[in-house]
Amino acid sequence: KLERLESVCSNALFVSADKGTNILRLKDELIKRLKEDEPEETIVGDLVPYNGRVVMVVPVDFEAPKGRIILPQVQLIRDCLDHGIKSYVVRDSELESALSDMSGPDLVVTDSQAFKNVSRIVPRDIKLTSFSILFARYKGDLGTLVNGAMKVEELKDGDMVLISEACTHNYSHEDIGRVKIPMLLNKYTGKKIRYDFKMGSDFPENIEEYALVIHCGACMLNRKAMQTRIDMCTEKNVKITNYGVLLAYLNKILPRCLEIFKSTEKDSASSME
Amino acid sequence: KLERLESVCSNALFVSADKGTNILRLKDELIKRLKEDEPEETIVGDLVPYNGRVVMVVPVDFEAPKGRIILPQVQLIRDCLDHGIKSYVVRDSELESALSDMSGPDLVVTDSQAFKNVSRIVPRDIKLTSFSILFARYKGDLGTLVNGAMKVEELKDGDMVLISEACTHNYSHEDIGRVKIPMLLNKYTGKKIRYDFKMGSDFPENIEEYALVIHCGACMLNRKAMQTRIDMCTEKNVKITNYGVLLAYLNKILPRCLEIFKSTEKDSASSME
Repeated sequence: KLERLESVCSNALFVSADKGTNILRLKDELIKRLKEDEPEETIVGDLVPYNGRVVMVVPVDFEAPKGRIILPQVQLIRDCLDHGIKSYVVRDSELESALSDMSGPDLVVTDSQAFKNVSRIVPRDIKLTSFSILFARYKGDLGTLVNGAMKVEELKDGDMVLISEACTHNYSHEDIGRVKIPMLLNKYTGKKIRYDFKMGSDFPENIEEYALVIHCGACMLNRKAMQTRIDMCTEKNVKITNYGVLLAYLNKILPRCLEIFKSTEKDSASSME
Repeated sequence: KLERLESVCSNALFVSADKGTNILRLKDELIKRLKEDEPEETIVGDLVPYNGRVVMVVPVDFEAPKGRIILPQVQLIRDCLDHGIKSYVVRDSELESALSDMSGPDLVVTDSQAFKNVSRIVPRDIKLTSFSILFARYKGDLGTLVNGAMKVEELKDGDMVLISEACTHNYSHEDIGRVKIPMLLNKYTGKKIRYDFKMGSDFPENIEEYALVIHCGACMLNRKAMQTRIDMCTEKNVKITNYGVLLAYLNKILPRCLEIFKSTEKDSASSME
């Protein structure tokens, strides 16, 4: 009877808990099918051609963990490898020499902190962006986040801004959200803005009470969870941006950071023109 | 009275648990001094000049964790950054094009698995080594480990070989130690060798009973702990080598892997000549 069933269902896998047959094959099959179902997500694979060259500028400062490089840098290197893109990893102090080692790379990616110095070194005809902008796109919807940053121009006295951080404890990020961004935003707008801070999974229901949501880089959230938060804001017509995009905007580096996306994502870049 | 003490001991820091004074400064000072005391250890910083170019060949196979690169690769990139060395990270499939992107790099470092293919691609006048050889030196004493590998030539029927693995669970390393190395060693020597396996901190006292100790790459041990094990062997006149060095030797790639060290560590390389 079982044999007849097997001959009919040629695409099925028959597992016996009793005899222990096919349990390993079931696992392999599950892994294989889960892999097939994964959406093709890439950080730069669709921006730089196969066999292209990316220069990554990684300043080594006191915040870099000893003997390591931080996760976004590791992920970008791996993403390049996966797409047959070659990455030249250098400090800002060796960048000039790195650019003279090879003819025009397809893209230079820098830590945002070093952007000003790096943008002076990288010739205007070479594309330049930051790790945080690449990850804003990878983890979210760059067009919406860029659009959200424009809201800064319309902020009024008394507006409530939500600063939302996905991780629950991280001193150095906390400093960006709690100190650096409010300070820069106050200075840029000259308005009396009220700030509200939420951490971890605490993303408020009453999102419509905020004039603007500023979200962290979401390295602890997957793309889907971040997209849900973006959708919640969009539904209630609340602008949302993130740390990387906003800091780039306030530092007036956003337009150059977005040039690389123009060919592939007209929407996200056009709002800056 | 305290004030007089302070004026005399200008190099001391006075902390009060009562008033809470200087506690943060004490912490800062501890961190600063601990940093100063750290011995200067480097993976390639003494092999490649400042502003030099290293090409790293990182094949992306099923064992590489999704979205990441493995720790030795991360550590090598960071070590390069710390010493102002520029690293070009590529797959073996893009290596040929990578070499044509820049004039002769100072060193090519490859995953051992890809060595044969890579050594055909890299011109003979460019230095070439493997991640595991660099780490054999970083974590241990390359000269002694290379010398230990020579012992393979003297192994006799019935000799007992210890395979020592520092981590307690890791399927893929276990496979190298339990399956791959015994198989290759049996084939290379043609002798009936007996194997003993020890895991984790279980490094035997009766080390003199072994003809040869083959140690793992020690990524879970610090340099000092590995050096202690090497010293234990040396004291009892037992040869010790490690996975990376032995595999390079058995695959006849060790001489080329060692060329980069010739200028700095004559001892470790001379035993291969």
